[in-house]
Amino acid sequence: MNTFGNIYRLTSFGESHGPAVGGVIDGLPPGEIFSFEALQEELDRRRPGRDASVSARREPDRLILLSGFLPAGEGLIRSLGTPVGFYVANTDCLPGAYDDIRGLYRPNHADYAWERKYGLRDWRGGGRASGRETVSRVVYGAFARQILSRRGISVNAEVSAVGGCANPAEFSDVIVRARSLGDSLGGIVSATVTGVPAGLGEPTFGKLQQMLASAMLSIGGVHGFDYGDGISLASMTGSEAADGMCPGDGDAPRFLSNHCGGIQGGISNGQDIRFRVFFKPTPSVAVDLPTVDTAGNPARISTKGRHDPCIALRGAPVVKAMAAGVILDAMLLARTVSLD
Amino acid sequence: MNTFGNIYRLTSFGESHGPAVGGVIDGLPPGEIFSFEALQEELDRRRPGRDASVSARREPDRLILLSGFLPAGEGLIRSLGTPVGFYVANTDCLPGAYDDIRGLYRPNHADYAWERKYGLRDWRGGGRASGRETVSRVVYGAFARQILSRRGISVNAEVSAVGGCANPAEFSDVIVRARSLGDSLGGIVSATVTGVPAGLGEPTFGKLQQMLASAMLSIGGVHGFDYGDGISLASMTGSEAADGMCPGDGDAPRFLSNHCGGIQGGISNGQDIRFRVFFKPTPSVAVDLPTVDTAGNPARISTKGRHDPCIALRGAPVVKAMAAGVILDAMLLARTVSLD
Amino acid sequence: MNTFGNIYRLTSFGESHGPAVGGVIDGLPPGEIFSFEALQEELDRRRPGRDASVSARREPDRLILLSGFLPAGEGLIRSLGTPVGFYVANTDCLPGAYDDIRGLYRPNHADYAWERKYGLRDWRGGGRASGRETVSRVVYGAFARQILSRRGISVNAEVSAVGGCANPAEFSDVIVRARSLGDSLGGIVSATVTGVPAGLGEPTFGKLQQMLASAMLSIGGVHGFDYGDGISLASMTGSEAADGMCPGDGDAPRFLSNHCGGIQGGISNGQDIRFRVFFKPTPSVAVDLPTVDTAGNPARISTKGRHDPCIALRGAPVVKAMAAGVILDAMLLARTVSLD
Amino acid sequence: MNTFGNIYRLTSFGESHGPAVGGVIDGLPPGEIFSFEALQEELDRRRPGRDASVSARREPDRLILLSGFLPAGEGLIRSLGTPVGFYVANTDCLPGAYDDIRGLYRPNHADYAWERKYGLRDWRGGGRASGRETVSRVVYGAFARQILSRRGISVNAEVSAVGGCANPAEFSDVIVRARSLGDSLGGIVSATVTGVPAGLGEPTFGKLQQMLASAMLSIGGVHGFDYGDGISLASMTGSEAADGMCPGDGDAPRFLSNHCGGIQGGISNGQDIRFRVFFKPTPSVAVDLPTVDTAGNPARISTKGRHDPCIALRGAPVVKAMAAGVILDAMLLARTVSLD
Repeated sequence: MNTFGNIYRLTSFGESHGPAVGGVIDGLPPGEIFSFEALQEELDRRRPGRDASVSARREPDRLILLSGFLPAGEGLIRSLGTPVGFYVANTDCLPGAYDDIRGLYRPNHADYAWERKYGLRDWRGGGRASGRETVSRVVYGAFARQILSRRGISVNAEVSAVGGCANPAEFSDVIVRARSLGDSLGGIVSATVTGVPAGLGEPTFGKLQQMLASAMLSIGGVHGFDYGDGISLASMTGSEAADGMCPGDGDAPRFLSNHCGGIQGGISNGQDIRFRVFFKPTPSVAVDLPTVDTAGNPARISTKGRHDPCIALRGAPVVKAMAAGVILDAMLLARTVSLD
Repeated sequence: MNTFGNIYRLTSFGESHGPAVGGVIDGLPPGEIFSFEALQEELDRRRPGRDASVSARREPDRLILLSGFLPAGEGLIRSLGTPVGFYVANTDCLPGAYDDIRGLYRPNHADYAWERKYGLRDWRGGGRASGRETVSRVVYGAFARQILSRRGISVNAEVSAVGGCANPAEFSDVIVRARSLGDSLGGIVSATVTGVPAGLGEPTFGKLQQMLASAMLSIGGVHGFDYGDGISLASMTGSEAADGMCPGDGDAPRFLSNHCGGIQGGISNGQDIRFRVFFKPTPSVAVDLPTVDTAGNPARISTKGRHDPCIALRGAPVVKAMAAGVILDAMLLARTVSLD
Repeated sequence: MNTFGNIYRLTSFGESHGPAVGGVIDGLPPGEIFSFEALQEELDRRRPGRDASVSARREPDRLILLSGFLPAGEGLIRSLGTPVGFYVANTDCLPGAYDDIRGLYRPNHADYAWERKYGLRDWRGGGRASGRETVSRVVYGAFARQILSRRGISVNAEVSAVGGCANPAEFSDVIVRARSLGDSLGGIVSATVTGVPAGLGEPTFGKLQQMLASAMLSIGGVHGFDYGDGISLASMTGSEAADGMCPGDGDAPRFLSNHCGGIQGGISNGQDIRFRVFFKPTPSVAVDLPTVDTAGNPARISTKGRHDPCIALRGAPVVKAMAAGVILDAMLLARTVSLD
Repeated sequence: MNTFGNIYRLTSFGESHGPAVGGVIDGLPPGEIFSFEALQEELDRRRPGRDASVSARREPDRLILLSGFLPAGEGLIRSLGTPVGFYVANTDCLPGAYDDIRGLYRPNHADYAWERKYGLRDWRGGGRASGRETVSRVVYGAFARQILSRRGISVNAEVSAVGGCANPAEFSDVIVRARSLGDSLGGIVSATVTGVPAGLGEPTFGKLQQMLASAMLSIGGVHGFDYGDGISLASMTGSEAADGMCPGDGDAPRFLSNHCGGIQGGISNGQDIRFRVFFKPTPSVAVDLPTVDTAGNPARISTKGRHDPCIALRGAPVVKAMAAGVILDAMLLARTVSLD
């Protein structure tokens, strides 16, 4: 269960404090040209340690590609259509930092549930449940975005709210304040995909919104998803929510509104796809909380480590990446509808 | 893409105005005893035409089982561990009712997107995109619920808001009013699963919340999903959202709160699982709306047919069914963690 | 595990002495026209009771389609691109015939292994392990063959050996003799697919020969598979086995031989695909054999029932059907290689 | 399509002359202890360049594990239950050796079919179609074998025929002779799995023989598979082929023979599993053969490179590895039959 996607697939591996994180990307179309530098830049954008509002962990996060390409000159690479093995080494591990909480379950972390499932866990940082696992998702999305981009499809995602504050100009202040209290904040990421052709997604299982929700709820810390007018639709009437149509400029009709977020009956209709992803606050806080140790005795915990006070900030590139992966996957899958 | 689930799987078929809807259930454990009557009752609960607040279509919806069981006496059946083929006949079809809108795209229906994908569509009612497709989901869930129930696991789902109104005592009035205006309403279904063992769900892809979100967003008309404190978590701090722990009565520790909705790091922690599903208003309304015909000419449409003014009402049993299917599937899948 | 295929998929259900056998076909391309009569004829060809060399069981085997089509006039049906639910009723069941062997394990049948796996079994005939399960495979293949046929692809399979005899003119005599002794015979089915485009199959997992082998070894009673010169290649030299090439009439080169059976590196090369399927003798024989009863006591068994003395005969249409399904599946899957 | 298995899964990557070959193993049970040295030894056994009868390519083939383990002291590692990322670097590449045949299609290689499918190919050695891809399979099997071994299950595979010669004492001579002629030979690998519990495999799709056949036919150069008495069964009578039963020492009955190779109705019956794999001769020979170049002009080719004259020799460890993977996968999957 470390594989995502139908045709364009990511199989991911890696613990936060093991040798590396990485994966295998399958289904990358052959003959596509990629800029290696642009791939690396997407990873850099995900990386912690860039400013005060994100985790202080510093990782060069240098992408190593092990297969799937021929060199194409001038920093470019050409895909062979074969699987892409890749990894990023973990070089800034301080496992000693976790020694004193090794025997404690951190509240709202995966620690307790994990140990109940597997009988053991990697107590050095988040292990497999760490945000560092998202490195492989960003690589998965970076290839997809270059392919989509040259076909006129653009995927964007940005933080639209932090701890209840919806004014981007104030995000930085709000976060710095929370960090100074040793606390953390939830947030919302809003995403838009433009240029999507009509006909992506399957009518029953494999609805496009289902693929997107599955992708988003697979990201650590995500507690909600909606698309189009989303949760507001639950308070609307059918006549308010209707996206009327009129003749368009060319063959395709024009929609008079986009309450449905570009998806009808599970299938894209050619309008922009809009959706939102709701992140909980980073569970690691320096605030003192009640817990138990692995022997069941009461204890108190206050996580020091290096953590982002608002995971939604680092979540935005991951949302963008997973959305790009889903769209490319849906485009490849849509080709199986007929033989002609 | 008409199959859902990993081990306990549903493959579904059927158009609203074809001969039947049904499916195949795979992975049903052998030797389990079921009450046929209880299965039929779950279908009856999903059925339209029971009172003024739901669609007037009348279907006996008699469940026909084609395989997978031996009779076990007194209306009981015993599962063989083989796939369960089943169907429910479509007997109350009035395809003539759709003749005058055959050439029009109904706003917020799947009509336009479907035709762009497949090049043709079943214009007789919703076809495959009809709510009638949920019959097979209810059967899938009904078997699961009987199995879960005798292992102390209970799945519940009910409408918690209709068109912005959160008072159940007023739901009926609110709906009757919308219907009298030829309009429809969105709504919210809230679900709780109790008695779930710790350890269900996978850490990366296959998180329990991902399986639930995928199930819920596969239901027609659903525009959003959240779990635990859900979208509210985006406005909270980490210390507010933390679910502290203390020693419990037996071996397992006790949680001091359940903001996380019973799932941590993608894995159930033994607390109740809570989630919500947001439904849009029924797209078919008797209100006059602008559209185009299949030739691209401007037109007006007002859907007469027989439709539920609030699909969330009939959505609740479907939410319950899909949740039960997901939990049983996760329980079977969790057994593959080790050999011992 | 009752689903076969990647894009063009069959999910099958049904025990030999339950109400029906059938399945759901997913991924059937939309807008294709089928002759219902031709579908029924393929089922008739699989049917027992046609002459003395096959089982005496008589089933009308009337195909019932529950979804997936619109009528297209004159006995024709047009596919919607939605899943096809179908079944064939079991009408000639004589479960009483099995009463006296209910507590015995039949040698070379699935009885013992099944009971060890599931804890119970359907003792009325073969249950799920019966050859009757192949009804759904024949339907799966019949749709595929009509689609392939109008694209110039032809799938053929026939019995090439019976009990060591390779002369078709003598097959009937050989079988009648074995039956008169209460015994049964193994056989070989040889298949050829012509008109296959180059490029089908995947290079690593999902090789075309792997898909075919998986399909063939899923048929009850099959004990071996080879393709091209097959097992003879194990005794050949590389220079003997080489399929040299020379310029062809058009763009594509011409092959000077076809030792490889039309598949190289897992991918079709445009030549005919040739493979063989090796069937064991029907396990049910009227010869007295040692066994144990379900309590572990020694016993003797001689299966009376109605059985084909050579399952390879009824296996040929099933081989043909599964091969057609694999080829159509591979053609649809091959479309996912690129976006253009 | 670079993933194999249901629960215990391998996703493989790598071209023969790219940076590395490797993969991700998913579903490895947690808490298992492995000897790293034993893993490396299995890779060494697969490695070419050990004696005159195999390819002269020399690769240290040092296994690098990137995730999935905690150190367990004394060269031992303990599995976390998380995915295992691994690779082996390609260090002995001589791509220049392929320059003069870059524009030619090598007979019986994947070259032509590959180029028809992907529009481009890696002409440096076999690329993805190289035998070097089997490195990841050997690692997949090596973990499985250690797990199976401590549960009393043993997987063995050895070459039983080379170029028609079935006397192991003569294999070396036969191969050296073929090599001296610049030619190559086919061969047979015979495998046995002992200690397998009854109940593995699924009755319809997912039969144990189907899983094995699928695994074996996914290995490059394999042209045939049979199990039990295999292809001989096609010439036998039912009474000859029957595996009678009698009471055993303990609870389980004893079989009087094992014509069926330990599998009945797709499910293991507790006897030894026996099967054979038929390999074609290595397609690269130094004998002059007719071909065409990529522009379609006639040409002659004689492959120099460094190649094994009999791939069956290096195939044996791969057969063993894949068989071990299938058995572990089937054991994990069999646990999903019931909840109890």
